[in-house]
Amino acid sequence: MSKTVRIREVGPRDGFQNEPETIDTYDKVRLIDQLARTGLRRIEVTSFVRPDVIPQLADAAAVLEAVDVPDGVSLSVLVPNERGLERALEHRDRFHEVSVFLSASETHNRKNVNRTIGESLDGLRLVIGRAREAGLRCEAVISTAFGCPYEGVVPPQRVAGIARELVDAGAQEIGFGDTTGMANPRQVRELFPQWREALPEVELTAHFHNTRGQGLANVLAALDAGVESFESSFGELGGCPVPAGATGNVATEDVVSMLEEMGIGTGIDLPALVVATGMVRDVLGRPLGSHVSTAGPVDWTPAPPSA
Amino acid sequence: MSKTVRIREVGPRDGFQNEPETIDTYDKVRLIDQLARTGLRRIEVTSFVRPDVIPQLADAAAVLEAVDVPDGVSLSVLVPNERGLERALEHRDRFHEVSVFLSASETHNRKNVNRTIGESLDGLRLVIGRAREAGLRCEAVISTAFGCPYEGVVPPQRVAGIARELVDAGAQEIGFGDTTGMANPRQVRELFPQWREALPEVELTAHFHNTRGQGLANVLAALDAGVESFESSFGELGGCPVPAGATGNVATEDVVSMLEEMGIGTGIDLPALVVATGMVRDVLGRPLGSHVSTAGPVDWTPAPPSA
Repeated sequence: MSKTVRIREVGPRDGFQNEPETIDTYDKVRLIDQLARTGLRRIEVTSFVRPDVIPQLADAAAVLEAVDVPDGVSLSVLVPNERGLERALEHRDRFHEVSVFLSASETHNRKNVNRTIGESLDGLRLVIGRAREAGLRCEAVISTAFGCPYEGVVPPQRVAGIARELVDAGAQEIGFGDTTGMANPRQVRELFPQWREALPEVELTAHFHNTRGQGLANVLAALDAGVESFESSFGELGGCPVPAGATGNVATEDVVSMLEEMGIGTGIDLPALVVATGMVRDVLGRPLGSHVSTAGPVDWTPAPPSA
Repeated sequence: MSKTVRIREVGPRDGFQNEPETIDTYDKVRLIDQLARTGLRRIEVTSFVRPDVIPQLADAAAVLEAVDVPDGVSLSVLVPNERGLERALEHRDRFHEVSVFLSASETHNRKNVNRTIGESLDGLRLVIGRAREAGLRCEAVISTAFGCPYEGVVPPQRVAGIARELVDAGAQEIGFGDTTGMANPRQVRELFPQWREALPEVELTAHFHNTRGQGLANVLAALDAGVESFESSFGELGGCPVPAGATGNVATEDVVSMLEEMGIGTGIDLPALVVATGMVRDVLGRPLGSHVSTAGPVDWTPAPPSA
């Protein structure tokens, strides 16, 4: 098991995108600025998607231009296609990485982006190539990598094959998304070594959701399988709205708490992160799904008992 | 890792005790009767505590007399002391096991039962002896076994020493309680083998809370360490109210979902358990902390997308 891990915070994109009410640009910027001062070194800040489809992220350019993060914090933006990349490249000096995505399930990919997997791959080859030409680091995320709510089992060889095509196109990092929280620790322990063997030259990143409460158990299983890179969302924001009412990504503060308690370094200041989580709770005006945001870090002194 | 595990449902005691509003006896009985038809083989149904201190369980005798469970379901009651045991023994033919408890932290034990650990042990020796004479199986639960919010680290040797005294007094099962959710998977993997070596002749049971979201990760770690017996609470009910706002025991349905997905048999019918959880949500009239109660089992067909 690794002594340190890398964590990419995806809440400002994945989380803010899934809130029913659009968050003010000002609030997004101050939340990102706070996250960037917690020790997080990777933050996915927004996505250049069609504003008429996802109005919650219509201010992508404004957010990118306004955030003020310390040196060494790598900002990434998600782009769905070439048009999105072109819009992002108008702000090329404001970010460092680009993320692209598709689904390993034909049905899920069709419902999500209205393309076949083959059509998505054709488009992403162009996007990845163009992004690399522009000097951007490139991550490709494969959704439903551990199972699909529409198709059930997703063959791991299919996932590996898609990943291979993305790597050959220039992707330097592959994210494996448990989009609807179907992964279990046994599966995680079996699949990552297979994927590592098939993809020895790139970074492999685990992106778990806490839909069925297994998020941290899957993080533990991935650690056991040698994974050193994770994606998570402060406050347990975001995540797929299928099934209805389900919670989101595994919470960054819960991941950091577990890892640091286990002696695995994240480089993240947990109290500062809990402050950021409190800020987003105030902005959203609703309770969060994460646990450490309520309970506090293990070593915080409890309130005196009422007796 | 074991191919099957045993799960004791503690929600009717630990959960109902911690609700601010006392649940109607009728509702308790029908919830227990439903739980007893899910395949659960062990249910902690109530506690004989002082009604003026814990009015939520003042109907302990009525509940014991009214529940109607299939053969093979072992019912247990929690007793704090000799007086509680004597009250329970008036209904001796209605249950099979007794659970006693103390804390491995002097401060926590003092705040919880106003005794030193030594005083608690003196009392529990009498309770365990008397319970065994009455033909009851006896579990002893050690709270704050993985850490104390008041004292911090709790030496594992102290926990083992307390457990040894309880076993010598006649306890056939030792429960290790992560009372305020301070356990982490590394610690769990280290401690259970030590405790197993110190206590080779009795059943060792892991009782985790999900205070910091690590409940299922700790279950996984305990499985890795050879543990085959767990306690959990449907709906994630119960748990220590310190820190304020914290969630409760790890949810039975979340544990069952993870284990069954991993191919580890629990003997529990997950859909039937989710029905029981829905019933208690209706009774309490509030959202639950558990995840599978909202998301449903992995293989449930999702609602059709709205598109």
